[in-house]
Amino acid sequence: MLEALKQKVYEANMDLPKYGLVVFTWGNVSAIDRESGLVVIKPSGVNYETMKPEDMVVVDLEGNVVEGSLRPSSDTPTHVELYKAFPNVGGIVHTHSPWATSWAQAGRGIPCYGTTHADYFYGEIPCARVLTPEEVEEAYEKNTGKVIIEAFEDRDPMSVPGVLCTSHGPFSWGKDAAEAVHNAVVLEEVAKMATRTEMLNPQVKPAVQYVQDKHYFRKHGPGAYYGQK
Amino acid sequence: MLEALKQKVYEANMDLPKYGLVVFTWGNVSAIDRESGLVVIKPSGVNYETMKPEDMVVVDLEGNVVEGSLRPSSDTPTHVELYKAFPNVGGIVHTHSPWATSWAQAGRGIPCYGTTHADYFYGEIPCARVLTPEEVEEAYEKNTGKVIIEAFEDRDPMSVPGVLCTSHGPFSWGKDAAEAVHNAVVLEEVAKMATRTEMLNPQVKPAVQYVQDKHYFRKHGPGAYYGQK
Amino acid sequence: MLEALKQKVYEANMDLPKYGLVVFTWGNVSAIDRESGLVVIKPSGVNYETMKPEDMVVVDLEGNVVEGSLRPSSDTPTHVELYKAFPNVGGIVHTHSPWATSWAQAGRGIPCYGTTHADYFYGEIPCARVLTPEEVEEAYEKNTGKVIIEAFEDRDPMSVPGVLCTSHGPFSWGKDAAEAVHNAVVLEEVAKMATRTEMLNPQVKPAVQYVQDKHYFRKHGPGAYYGQK
Amino acid sequence: MLEALKQKVYEANMDLPKYGLVVFTWGNVSAIDRESGLVVIKPSGVNYETMKPEDMVVVDLEGNVVEGSLRPSSDTPTHVELYKAFPNVGGIVHTHSPWATSWAQAGRGIPCYGTTHADYFYGEIPCARVLTPEEVEEAYEKNTGKVIIEAFEDRDPMSVPGVLCTSHGPFSWGKDAAEAVHNAVVLEEVAKMATRTEMLNPQVKPAVQYVQDKHYFRKHGPGAYYGQK
Repeated sequence: MLEALKQKVYEANMDLPKYGLVVFTWGNVSAIDRESGLVVIKPSGVNYETMKPEDMVVVDLEGNVVEGSLRPSSDTPTHVELYKAFPNVGGIVHTHSPWATSWAQAGRGIPCYGTTHADYFYGEIPCARVLTPEEVEEAYEKNTGKVIIEAFEDRDPMSVPGVLCTSHGPFSWGKDAAEAVHNAVVLEEVAKMATRTEMLNPQVKPAVQYVQDKHYFRKHGPGAYYGQK
Repeated sequence: MLEALKQKVYEANMDLPKYGLVVFTWGNVSAIDRESGLVVIKPSGVNYETMKPEDMVVVDLEGNVVEGSLRPSSDTPTHVELYKAFPNVGGIVHTHSPWATSWAQAGRGIPCYGTTHADYFYGEIPCARVLTPEEVEEAYEKNTGKVIIEAFEDRDPMSVPGVLCTSHGPFSWGKDAAEAVHNAVVLEEVAKMATRTEMLNPQVKPAVQYVQDKHYFRKHGPGAYYGQK
Repeated sequence: MLEALKQKVYEANMDLPKYGLVVFTWGNVSAIDRESGLVVIKPSGVNYETMKPEDMVVVDLEGNVVEGSLRPSSDTPTHVELYKAFPNVGGIVHTHSPWATSWAQAGRGIPCYGTTHADYFYGEIPCARVLTPEEVEEAYEKNTGKVIIEAFEDRDPMSVPGVLCTSHGPFSWGKDAAEAVHNAVVLEEVAKMATRTEMLNPQVKPAVQYVQDKHYFRKHGPGAYYGQK
Repeated sequence: MLEALKQKVYEANMDLPKYGLVVFTWGNVSAIDRESGLVVIKPSGVNYETMKPEDMVVVDLEGNVVEGSLRPSSDTPTHVELYKAFPNVGGIVHTHSPWATSWAQAGRGIPCYGTTHADYFYGEIPCARVLTPEEVEEAYEKNTGKVIIEAFEDRDPMSVPGVLCTSHGPFSWGKDAAEAVHNAVVLEEVAKMATRTEMLNPQVKPAVQYVQDKHYFRKHGPGAYYGQK
């Protein structure tokens, strides 16, 4: 079932340690097959070193396991919420990558200080609010998805493909699992450079809007001219 | 004598350079066989590159060498004190890992700023007080164990499996040597992220208690649902 | 056409990931054949892992493609402007290397705090001003070259072989592609150490001029005595 | 001539990139044969990747080349001064290792904040004063040695085996070339942790003297009990 997608999700998960985004099992990648509405996701707490493509778990959009002998990631309800709310998202990543997590722990969104950021994220990368005690008690992982969606009420998730969750860490996404991992790498790099930028100039302001526009739109949308074709 | 345990302690020691926790010989791992009351520990000042499982030294709970041709780690009396005071501890690690050591040198415990911390350590990781001149003079390594134990008077060492020693560095522990090393890696990662969190937000407060509770208890104790089984 | 130069430009591009200066495709190296006035440059958005010497693109000093089936780097007009204005430059590098980019995002030139800097860059590494909305609109990449040239009105580009572009990142250059990459590595290292120098001493002043002179001139110009011959 | 020593100096030089202490050719190691008064040192500006044991240069205590077809390191007069002034030193290392160089650029000695420092360096690692214009003009490299010696007027170079030179970088030494490199690694590690210690606690004081004494003397001198034998 969904063997090709399992292989892609497996490979995307294996890219997390390769890019230095995870320690131990602290991360998970999923992808959705929009036709069937089924999500393929990493099993919970399994070592990257021994994990195999067939260990990937298939769940439906209620989070029920449809196939797989292992438990899905404990963050599955968050992924499912995002797939339901963001119809163009095809893959989702969660990590505790250290620079992005430090911004999340600081409870701050990442301002757009330069073109590295603007090439991938159009404007500030938001920081979703902390959950209420009731939201944690009722359905912690599902409501983590809800507060992320709330942070995108006035934003397009495809032009800002990532978020920080207060006191927790980053989520990122893309049209598929590979692009979601790509954006997770960019988010970590941008978080690192933004931290150092503020150290060097505590009064620094975001890059001027017309430079942000130029860089975002030379890579995205009609008229893009970066890359091949 | 205790060949299986020696092998495990050897492997746990070899994981310290693998995870970037030690430079040269700056670390040691031990484990205890609770039935016989014997402790297996790394020899003092021996290179990781040439060390072999049979070099591990066996000592009793007075710190006397029971088997082994090499001197045990100079920190052996600290390990022994902790095994005597913390009956559920099966393995102990000491390193000079750079981020945790920086907190120790700053004389500060690490506040719980997020879920990476809360997944493993329930609340602040304490910083044990500096020894008095008399304590250093009388029995430095043994009294290092005593001040650690003092820092856990009002804390459960199994739910906060690590500590910083002022002007010195971290100790961590677990149910066995492998888990103790795992916790040493987490402690270093948490120390790194907490430093950056404070740089990004000098007024930051610890994560709200109900989020700390949620994360700690979804991984530990009855009702845990992270991982397999 | 220019096969030897393509090989050199290819190798110089491959050195960017080797020295940790780029993530993904975030960098490009070019070199000029001064006799023919033709520039060899990396194609846009192509992976380092699959790139081959024959993928390099040949453009003229108007930026028109003379040979090659791939699009040249989107930064080609910047390279071309610099070759036209700086007649002794033989190779140019652009990266988003994280420390140098942080200075660029902070909008600050890098003061010469020590001999590592003075061995390669004579005086402050300048930060070129942000472009106006009109300059971005009219010809962003070309005008990026123009503001760099403006920053060198009172400076010799051969004795200060690098620059930061506000909110963007570094460019560096040299007599050929290999030297340009060498200077990109130095610029990143100098940017890292300058950041930490200011953390350790916020009142720090640049190194005294006569020490800067001594180090720069013992490696460069008549009377140099560093290295062989 | 001195083939065994050349081999050792070669190996010690090759350890500099292995431990991440140098970029390109930014470092040099020497050793002295006290019987003949001859010093073996790395050639100037030669790549580590192609360097061979027979490339090492032999100089006398006036700095004259006695054997070797390559120029000795441009820092040779500094090494020679130190060998003449510090009779127990057998090997010397100079690097631009980034953390130690940042302290040098900040013009500050490194306070002893903990036991990692105290295990190897007894008290603060001093920062030698900047040279006068006359000293630079007259004999820069030789006078660099002189100001280092001046910084040790009231200190024993064998118990503080390293120094920072203002606006420049670190030198370290030991009983032979291998120990000098070992101390260069420790100096870099200590410089890193001291920087972070000050970030975490700007009011931090050095470790209490009796803890510094305990750690230094449990590893050095009569009564030492760290390590084997």
